[in-house]
Amino acid sequence: MAKGEEVSNKQVLLRDYVYGPLKETDMVLSTGTVHLKAPQGSKAILVKNIYLACEPYSRKMMMKGDNAIEPGSAITGFGVAKVLDSDHPDFKEGDFVWGITRWEEYSLIKNPESMFKIHNTDVPLSYYTGILGMPGLTAYAGFFEVCSPKKGEYVFVSSAFGAVGQIVGQFAKLMGCYVVGSAGSDDKVDLLKKKFGFDEAFNYKKEHDLDAALKRYFPNGTDIYFENVGGIMLDAVLLNMRQHGRIAVCGMISQHNLEHSEGVHNLTYFTSKRIRMEGFMVFDYYHLYPKFVDLTLQFIKEGKMVVMENIIEGLESGPSALVSLYDGNVVGKEVLCISHE
Amino acid sequence: MAKGEEVSNKQVLLRDYVYGPLKETDMVLSTGTVHLKAPQGSKAILVKNIYLACEPYSRKMMMKGDNAIEPGSAITGFGVAKVLDSDHPDFKEGDFVWGITRWEEYSLIKNPESMFKIHNTDVPLSYYTGILGMPGLTAYAGFFEVCSPKKGEYVFVSSAFGAVGQIVGQFAKLMGCYVVGSAGSDDKVDLLKKKFGFDEAFNYKKEHDLDAALKRYFPNGTDIYFENVGGIMLDAVLLNMRQHGRIAVCGMISQHNLEHSEGVHNLTYFTSKRIRMEGFMVFDYYHLYPKFVDLTLQFIKEGKMVVMENIIEGLESGPSALVSLYDGNVVGKEVLCISHE
Repeated sequence: MAKGEEVSNKQVLLRDYVYGPLKETDMVLSTGTVHLKAPQGSKAILVKNIYLACEPYSRKMMMKGDNAIEPGSAITGFGVAKVLDSDHPDFKEGDFVWGITRWEEYSLIKNPESMFKIHNTDVPLSYYTGILGMPGLTAYAGFFEVCSPKKGEYVFVSSAFGAVGQIVGQFAKLMGCYVVGSAGSDDKVDLLKKKFGFDEAFNYKKEHDLDAALKRYFPNGTDIYFENVGGIMLDAVLLNMRQHGRIAVCGMISQHNLEHSEGVHNLTYFTSKRIRMEGFMVFDYYHLYPKFVDLTLQFIKEGKMVVMENIIEGLESGPSALVSLYDGNVVGKEVLCISHE
Repeated sequence: MAKGEEVSNKQVLLRDYVYGPLKETDMVLSTGTVHLKAPQGSKAILVKNIYLACEPYSRKMMMKGDNAIEPGSAITGFGVAKVLDSDHPDFKEGDFVWGITRWEEYSLIKNPESMFKIHNTDVPLSYYTGILGMPGLTAYAGFFEVCSPKKGEYVFVSSAFGAVGQIVGQFAKLMGCYVVGSAGSDDKVDLLKKKFGFDEAFNYKKEHDLDAALKRYFPNGTDIYFENVGGIMLDAVLLNMRQHGRIAVCGMISQHNLEHSEGVHNLTYFTSKRIRMEGFMVFDYYHLYPKFVDLTLQFIKEGKMVVMENIIEGLESGPSALVSLYDGNVVGKEVLCISHE
């Protein structure tokens, strides 16, 4: 393809804002056209998307709010891409980048300052949608910066098999903590223990009483809760937090598909247990990326951290993959492969 | 009275643990006897109670848990007392102290290390149950240490007319913040604005929609929430927090008298708004007392902070005073005067 050529561009568009459970029909496959050029003076880059991550981020952006996806526009989300044309001094043709792009074959990125250049290509590029990308940095910032962990502390991770949870558990083990995760299937529980090194894990769907489950694994309570789900799990955790416990709120996935969120009842423990709960966004920790990526690459190369991903071919598979994220049957992080570089 | 003499000792006892709304009949007036002596080798002090504070602390200790009041024992709470006999090297006969004592005329304090000696007696001693005692230090620690306020920030205080809330508002104004308080009567609202210097205040009982009320006073949202009530107020505040907002959880008084606490539904905002919520207990900040008391005494003497208290005569009035704390009709901090020194 010649630079500047007009080519067809397959896209996945948002039909309208989504508030109830996400359905495949909330997304529409469409084909438009694109000039393979970053307009002069625009400071933009024109990229070819290679991998797109299936993540709660994209679901969240389907609700009205800051940075929401406009109905009729392509879904936004994290991905890995190759620069085909650049009007920005920091990027040149052939660079690989990761960051927020769109669910389409080619994207014009108007604010490429928000993209990270990929310097290490001796690991699979798809890792930059996971352990070396947003989920990895989220886990790193949330665990080390927000939770202030100490060696020997007790750590609980919900949605532990999720892209972020898997990594939090591995960081916590490397830090010398005792780590328990919850997940939604026995297969995931098995993998958390056997592949990802969690000390214990349980299938929350099989527990009638989450408080009792937590007491089984943390008879003396937990110091740190890495919160991915919200609702009744948070309520049960609050009953089991230790004095000066810390909760990093990465997300509350159990609440995304509810029109009215569940109430949380045990907040009165905040005072008596001196609990600190802090929501965070990975964007606030971008300055830590170089430090994080050096550390994590080293751990991967030394075999101290493992990766498990489920690569799905083609943009067409995007809607069903994103919906399946919420039915809990996905095993492993889902990544759409859009182009074979 | 001679040292060591046995004298009668009026007391207010807890009948049984209290879970529903507090009633006067949950407390029993009784008369026992006491030796006016700190036993040798006990390291205890024997005090004559002068002022006792009517505060949520005493209500909270009526529920089973750490430091709960044993049924049949005297109510515990903060007060000002005079040392009649001491077996502890740090205290001597005639010293004035404040800290946790019991609702009775004379108390044997077995761990006097937890009491503060009163060095400045040129202000009314009752102030040491309020602005110079636990409520003052709670306000100071919660506002300055937990909320990390900056000049010009927007501050909301619920139960603002309570012993702690009044003081938080005054500290916030002295810090250069914009301060709004909520209270449960028009009289209190008036006093918050006219006497305590709040920029605005509102009667939450007259608001059908707390979210709308907060939007009226904080069109651009609030940076700091000093949380005294919990429940639906917290839910409304979460909708109105600004990015990187901070919530200091001092207590959740609206939940004390409920057998099942209200659910809080808007916790999903923690992530998108990067909210930090932290529960705290004044006991963790006792080391700040000297700094706090010097600053606050100076503010009082310069007329920059004001005090309003409602002194009630006699231990017999204790049960009704404590119950009335929860019906919201009390204007001003209630202090029981047990003895005229």
